[in-house]
Amino acid sequence: MTSGYTRRVNSEQTAALRELLHGQRIASLGTLRAGEPYVSMVPFALLPDGSGFVIHVSQLSSHTEDMLESPRVSLLVVAPETPGKPPQAVARIAAQGRAEPCPASAPGYAATREAYLSRFPQAADIFELPDFSLFTIRPSSIRYIGGFAQAMTLTPEAFATALRQEPR
Amino acid sequence: MTSGYTRRVNSEQTAALRELLHGQRIASLGTLRAGEPYVSMVPFALLPDGSGFVIHVSQLSSHTEDMLESPRVSLLVVAPETPGKPPQAVARIAAQGRAEPCPASAPGYAATREAYLSRFPQAADIFELPDFSLFTIRPSSIRYIGGFAQAMTLTPEAFATALRQEPR
Repeated sequence: MTSGYTRRVNSEQTAALRELLHGQRIASLGTLRAGEPYVSMVPFALLPDGSGFVIHVSQLSSHTEDMLESPRVSLLVVAPETPGKPPQAVARIAAQGRAEPCPASAPGYAATREAYLSRFPQAADIFELPDFSLFTIRPSSIRYIGGFAQAMTLTPEAFATALRQEPR
Repeated sequence: MTSGYTRRVNSEQTAALRELLHGQRIASLGTLRAGEPYVSMVPFALLPDGSGFVIHVSQLSSHTEDMLESPRVSLLVVAPETPGKPPQAVARIAAQGRAEPCPASAPGYAATREAYLSRFPQAADIFELPDFSLFTIRPSSIRYIGGFAQAMTLTPEAFATALRQEPR
């Protein structure tokens, strides 16, 4: 199953991965809606142990309904476009993973909430509303494309290790 | 089926829609892959009559395989993040639609190719390669979110009309 997977990421790749995920705050979330793909925008944060992503979504929104019905999701984070540079060369990360609600009663709730609020402090007010929920998205595989001919598929462990590393 | 759909877009909304779609060159494409959503990055152009999007993809890539197997796709275009602005306020357009290959033998091929190359002139070389194909994506419904409390669902006709209008 993991043939072709990159299990160890070098320091340059680690820095590029971290720069992309720490520099961007929004992702494209793919959910399954009535058997069809549905892509929506979500602000995201990172779990401190590098095991995945955290999102905070309204229970009234379509993607939340979708994730509760079918937890398999896809998340894409893309670097900003650079004028004059071919768009195919833009760095991006696509994760296939599993979305799970993280209610206030869950063991990891406090740390997950803190991870989200450390990136989005202004979301604290929204946490007071009853119709918003935290979800974690834990990847089963991660595709990182740094530019032309710079693609690799990471195991969740290699991804977590890269994210846990302190910036140089 | 179309209750709640916006059939006419005012001039301010038209300008904002056009600015978003003409200002961005890359989209997130959601396809169905082994029954799960799969999101990838694609450069896109617009069909001149406003009826949809054009993409140019490698036959070796996963999303191309997916579209040939299951043509129902989702396409999301997001405005750049503004530092200091809440990420939820970022303007975006999400289209649910149908992807169709546009081979050189198709009646609309020349105009579709021209639409793509007028945005991505450097892609001309790639058109010489045998393993790249044009696809059109024609939306069945379009969701436009201009910011907080500025969401609307457009019919394909309203979307096409907005895109065809000359900039003010």
